[in-house]
Amino acid sequence: MKFIRDSVHGNLKLSEFEVRIVDTPQFQRLRRIKQLGFTSLIYPGANHSRFEHSIGAMYLASRLAEHLGLGHEKKRVLRLCALLHDVGHGPFSHVSEGVLEMSHESLTRELIRKSILGDIISEEFDLRQVMRILRGEGVLGQAISGELDVDRMDYLLRDSHYTGVAYGIIDVERLIYNMKMENDLVLDRKGVQAAESALLARYFMYPSVYQHHTTRIVNSMFRRCLRSLISGGVLDASRIYRYDDMDLIVMCRNQEGLAGDMMRRLDNRDLLKTVDSVKLNELEDPDRVFRITEAEIQRAEEEIAEDMGLDPDYVVVNLPEYPAFDEMRTQVSVGDSIVNLSHISSLVGALKEARFNHADICVYVPGEFAGSFRDFSLHDYMDLPERRPSHPRQLRLTVPDYLRFR
Amino acid sequence: MKFIRDSVHGNLKLSEFEVRIVDTPQFQRLRRIKQLGFTSLIYPGANHSRFEHSIGAMYLASRLAEHLGLGHEKKRVLRLCALLHDVGHGPFSHVSEGVLEMSHESLTRELIRKSILGDIISEEFDLRQVMRILRGEGVLGQAISGELDVDRMDYLLRDSHYTGVAYGIIDVERLIYNMKMENDLVLDRKGVQAAESALLARYFMYPSVYQHHTTRIVNSMFRRCLRSLISGGVLDASRIYRYDDMDLIVMCRNQEGLAGDMMRRLDNRDLLKTVDSVKLNELEDPDRVFRITEAEIQRAEEEIAEDMGLDPDYVVVNLPEYPAFDEMRTQVSVGDSIVNLSHISSLVGALKEARFNHADICVYVPGEFAGSFRDFSLHDYMDLPERRPSHPRQLRLTVPDYLRFR
Amino acid sequence: MKFIRDSVHGNLKLSEFEVRIVDTPQFQRLRRIKQLGFTSLIYPGANHSRFEHSIGAMYLASRLAEHLGLGHEKKRVLRLCALLHDVGHGPFSHVSEGVLEMSHESLTRELIRKSILGDIISEEFDLRQVMRILRGEGVLGQAISGELDVDRMDYLLRDSHYTGVAYGIIDVERLIYNMKMENDLVLDRKGVQAAESALLARYFMYPSVYQHHTTRIVNSMFRRCLRSLISGGVLDASRIYRYDDMDLIVMCRNQEGLAGDMMRRLDNRDLLKTVDSVKLNELEDPDRVFRITEAEIQRAEEEIAEDMGLDPDYVVVNLPEYPAFDEMRTQVSVGDSIVNLSHISSLVGALKEARFNHADICVYVPGEFAGSFRDFSLHDYMDLPERRPSHPRQLRLTVPDYLRFR
Amino acid sequence: MKFIRDSVHGNLKLSEFEVRIVDTPQFQRLRRIKQLGFTSLIYPGANHSRFEHSIGAMYLASRLAEHLGLGHEKKRVLRLCALLHDVGHGPFSHVSEGVLEMSHESLTRELIRKSILGDIISEEFDLRQVMRILRGEGVLGQAISGELDVDRMDYLLRDSHYTGVAYGIIDVERLIYNMKMENDLVLDRKGVQAAESALLARYFMYPSVYQHHTTRIVNSMFRRCLRSLISGGVLDASRIYRYDDMDLIVMCRNQEGLAGDMMRRLDNRDLLKTVDSVKLNELEDPDRVFRITEAEIQRAEEEIAEDMGLDPDYVVVNLPEYPAFDEMRTQVSVGDSIVNLSHISSLVGALKEARFNHADICVYVPGEFAGSFRDFSLHDYMDLPERRPSHPRQLRLTVPDYLRFR
Repeated sequence: MKFIRDSVHGNLKLSEFEVRIVDTPQFQRLRRIKQLGFTSLIYPGANHSRFEHSIGAMYLASRLAEHLGLGHEKKRVLRLCALLHDVGHGPFSHVSEGVLEMSHESLTRELIRKSILGDIISEEFDLRQVMRILRGEGVLGQAISGELDVDRMDYLLRDSHYTGVAYGIIDVERLIYNMKMENDLVLDRKGVQAAESALLARYFMYPSVYQHHTTRIVNSMFRRCLRSLISGGVLDASRIYRYDDMDLIVMCRNQEGLAGDMMRRLDNRDLLKTVDSVKLNELEDPDRVFRITEAEIQRAEEEIAEDMGLDPDYVVVNLPEYPAFDEMRTQVSVGDSIVNLSHISSLVGALKEARFNHADICVYVPGEFAGSFRDFSLHDYMDLPERRPSHPRQLRLTVPDYLRFR
Repeated sequence: MKFIRDSVHGNLKLSEFEVRIVDTPQFQRLRRIKQLGFTSLIYPGANHSRFEHSIGAMYLASRLAEHLGLGHEKKRVLRLCALLHDVGHGPFSHVSEGVLEMSHESLTRELIRKSILGDIISEEFDLRQVMRILRGEGVLGQAISGELDVDRMDYLLRDSHYTGVAYGIIDVERLIYNMKMENDLVLDRKGVQAAESALLARYFMYPSVYQHHTTRIVNSMFRRCLRSLISGGVLDASRIYRYDDMDLIVMCRNQEGLAGDMMRRLDNRDLLKTVDSVKLNELEDPDRVFRITEAEIQRAEEEIAEDMGLDPDYVVVNLPEYPAFDEMRTQVSVGDSIVNLSHISSLVGALKEARFNHADICVYVPGEFAGSFRDFSLHDYMDLPERRPSHPRQLRLTVPDYLRFR
Repeated sequence: MKFIRDSVHGNLKLSEFEVRIVDTPQFQRLRRIKQLGFTSLIYPGANHSRFEHSIGAMYLASRLAEHLGLGHEKKRVLRLCALLHDVGHGPFSHVSEGVLEMSHESLTRELIRKSILGDIISEEFDLRQVMRILRGEGVLGQAISGELDVDRMDYLLRDSHYTGVAYGIIDVERLIYNMKMENDLVLDRKGVQAAESALLARYFMYPSVYQHHTTRIVNSMFRRCLRSLISGGVLDASRIYRYDDMDLIVMCRNQEGLAGDMMRRLDNRDLLKTVDSVKLNELEDPDRVFRITEAEIQRAEEEIAEDMGLDPDYVVVNLPEYPAFDEMRTQVSVGDSIVNLSHISSLVGALKEARFNHADICVYVPGEFAGSFRDFSLHDYMDLPERRPSHPRQLRLTVPDYLRFR
Repeated sequence: MKFIRDSVHGNLKLSEFEVRIVDTPQFQRLRRIKQLGFTSLIYPGANHSRFEHSIGAMYLASRLAEHLGLGHEKKRVLRLCALLHDVGHGPFSHVSEGVLEMSHESLTRELIRKSILGDIISEEFDLRQVMRILRGEGVLGQAISGELDVDRMDYLLRDSHYTGVAYGIIDVERLIYNMKMENDLVLDRKGVQAAESALLARYFMYPSVYQHHTTRIVNSMFRRCLRSLISGGVLDASRIYRYDDMDLIVMCRNQEGLAGDMMRRLDNRDLLKTVDSVKLNELEDPDRVFRITEAEIQRAEEEIAEDMGLDPDYVVVNLPEYPAFDEMRTQVSVGDSIVNLSHISSLVGALKEARFNHADICVYVPGEFAGSFRDFSLHDYMDLPERRPSHPRQLRLTVPDYLRFR
């Protein structure tokens, strides 16, 4: 038995076997991948790593297994899968969605199969079972990758601990106490308030952390770097799980042109500026925004660049991330039936609407060009019909200015 | 300058003058009045006093005054009023609403006028100004007793600290940073999320603390004691601010009959049991419940008692407290106009509905009689027509079992 | 299974049987006994009860039992004894040492034997074994009542939580992880730093909480009340476990003369004042102070009173409590031998000396008489030869002023 | 005014001018320098940066300036100096002591003079005054770089927050409240206990964090890398303030030979192993250890390597860091005189001795060679006469095993 001292959950025990997994180069790499990528440019304390998060998820898996009364073997495999669930995560990978072609879940499974991890696991476990759980199959799979899984519980808790946003809202202990194993992993009706707490944590963190105005800018800047590395053949995207944050950053620094320049700007916090934004809740058909294609975006960027006499690499049209809020679909056991969380909680019902309040489409350009964009309107470049001028029923839930700076 | 170490806000400074106020017997009495009355029977840590709360409210008044840029004199008077705002509070006074005839605010002003407090205040302040602020008049009055005042901020924070419920949700610092003084004290639009946090704290604490199933029972038991003391001429209700918790408890213990018996039950945690309950959200006209009169209640209790062969003193029909959630009416400054918080926050709009989800009318009787009530229905005694049998759109947000016990 | 939410340890589980114990009037009484008596006059947050502490000690007993690998039955009995260890505690009982004749441990055993508690326990346990453990016998007894027992761990942690003094110093988790069961319950050598942490917590809390200047005054005032109640035949000291804090306070209030007057002063925080003090570390033979008899004290008080023309009931000569610091005697397992903690930790060796630095003998009188004591010296009334005038090697470790006020 | 949310101190305000300083590339570089270098290999949460620490020190400078009653201008310059005090810190610079030739304080001053920072500062401040303060001159200099300065307060607090070791011990608020400005910045006698708390925090963190067994190993490994980079002409040591952590790590990875290999081992946490250690408190003349020269060490390493048939680059003889504990020399104002903290606090006197208890000289080699060292003794290679075999009065205060793993 070995211990790791975790900032969120306290002293965590690892078995000898788990230590062997942790001691592989593949797992150690997670120490060098920040959980929230460039978010430390906004919240300077947000330097936590996927290593911590993986150990934390393993701990919550234990707690859940004990609560559900799973036997020793099931608990062991659940711990193992929680430990491994992010091992294939590329550096900044949530940032690189749309740039890379495989999901981090697929990469995790590929890495396990192809590396020494698979061999070690096979000594004591059925590798296929592990893969099934990592694919989210069965009740154990739901515990790792469902609507209210240990991954999500740990990262909401950990991200709020290190950013200081919404800390204390999510009540993980009570969530776990109210999970039940029927055909699926479901929440007991008594746990509804605890599930609400998880959604509220997300509701508060969405505009303040995950989709913070500046977070979106730095992510879009890094995405330009990444695309440039891949198109230049510098980075092997299919082996993204071999790199850590430093590899990619220094790789960019060593490039001439776009990647090098963007990384220099990120290093110096010389960020792109917003020159226009269009709020979703003022559009006639807000949903359409999430159906806009990459090609449409690219075309708009090119046209704007041409009109303004800029390099299109330096014009970014940025869509808001779809606020998935998967926790809303949590299955709740009520008497003999299973219902959707958003059906029995009026608070969750409300969040379903409110989550779009902060969303907008933005255009970013380097600060030195922002002056030329004074009369610029994105509406001239994209088809975004607005609602008939009426009183907006719900104003945008603004991110306090307070949180706007770095 | 003297310091008091507060569990919630840290080391708090008091001026010489404030120490003189604190050192009066009238103020010292607040040390012996629990902020949450009998709630420690449910949350054993909830033993905090109105003394702590008053000092804490004074501290927040300072913070608010500094933020608003009030001058030295206004800050001093605001601190003083925050310090004094509960000095006339009777023991268990929120419990005794409906039993006592004066509000604790009136009692506070009466006590100040009639005691040495008025003399001390007059040495350095305009007593009439102090009274006006304590009546909630003017901008300073709103800071002490408005929709989002320092009283409320402190007690939400303090009650959640000592019960462990919803701790960390309310973001007082951000609330204060977003207050503005226009004609009235209003919230800047950027503070909407912070105001939401205050309402959410209340939303979570309502069924779990303030209107917890067991809290309602112990409060109704104590109310019987109180009525008996008053009707027996043992307690002078118009001088309730002379007593502390102990006086009333020992007074009851020394009574024969109802008061003595109920207090013995409270001491031994031998509580009344619920024999029926009717959920508001299943009624055709839920609002009517809050218009039911004392006389109606009493008649129902008498009829039940007669049918069951019980003493009507031991049958309690208990209405839910109206979930006022005053914070919903917070004035928010948006551009040139002032709007109501519930109009610009969809989350608050949702809470407006959701707050009724947990409410029900209950019937309590001593445990030894509960057996006879197996087929009992409150509908036979009160006019409470139910909604046509349909699918309840919103199920009741249950208090987790988890929280039901002491 | 039922849960109680504890401010210090979180949600704590109780078995059905334990709930039956907790539900007895004897145990419920602990809710109404403050853990630190009148200390809330100094730290307003220190309102916690022996009820909370007993539940907390039971939780730590579980943790210890699990760590030591005790079987199910031993764990159950250890939990039970931890739960019950204070059940015979009188109100303010540490204050009343020297006034009452039986220790609270004896009272606890007597109460169990004579009340329904004994009957309930006998249904599932061997009552004699429970009594042996409560007497501190055997390894299990040491876990409840030894040098580093669960009682002590809980109260140090809890008292520092509610006062805000030295919070975070004691590392209970690590202490428990380093306990070992050999012939006796001992500490593994690797736990030395954790044991140091416990002693440091005490070192910081001694002058700031337990023997705070003002704590000593209020305790001596209450002791006068108690003596007066007993000598007046109002209070049956041998049945002290039937009373709660309120009983005693209201009993005093109802007395004419000394008890009534002193309680009025306590209620109004109109405290006795120090008119002289003699520091132990300036005496030739500091140890002698702890051998001074009650009779000597009383004679000095009478002589002072006579010289000053006062009622001797209002002159208090107060000795410092002996700073026992029992944790210093913790047995540590080093290789094959067992040594005393103070022998292997130079930090503990230092505390052994330093703990006397703050100690002094004081004389207290009512504020209204303090003026007459300007030239008063306790040396004229007691034989306390001082060290030859030299440079005191170690100055007194002063309690910061900071902490002197309420 | 802008805000930064800090994990330790909450929301911190920055003036426009301070934002300009923070926005320079020179200052932004601090985001990419971990405060504790490779310590995250032992405590996975210890990823905090010098950026956070610098902002935190600025905040404490404000608090101190307000307490001391410094005027607006002095407060501004103190804040500025606290903000800048680490700006020349190289990556891993405490690790590189002995390898680099300039102190980080000199580098800070050089960087300011030679970069845009100097120009910005000169717009509003006297650059020579800033330099004097940064050199520790005058009372303001002592506040930045003295025995109990804001730098030290912040890092002790921050390091304990992120490692979870000794958190809560140091009482910064009380320390600041007890600082006084006489000819020098001194501590009031009432602050002795607060100063003790700072020393105790260090006492607990020394063996557990700063000189943790594994920390010493990873640091010695990195030192080998650094030496190799410098001797190979890859790194310009005199411009160390241009690099961040990533530069150095990737620089090593790209090297053939020693630097590349050691970094690969660090990346994979394949660490050197201890094959012998000699405790200082068993030596006849422990002090001599701190006078051992680099040359002596190198000679011993070479001889060991030769005897064992190893490359001397892979044999490390590691001396313990001298436990400076500068806080012990804090000047305390007692009546009319100023005395040294260790003279008036017996606790500090004890720590003066105890701090050597954990120190030892160690020999590290790669794990694959550890087997050959079974009968190895460092005594054969270095002149380290042991005390006559007697009972060691003070045993070594061991780091709990508990903390040994990662």
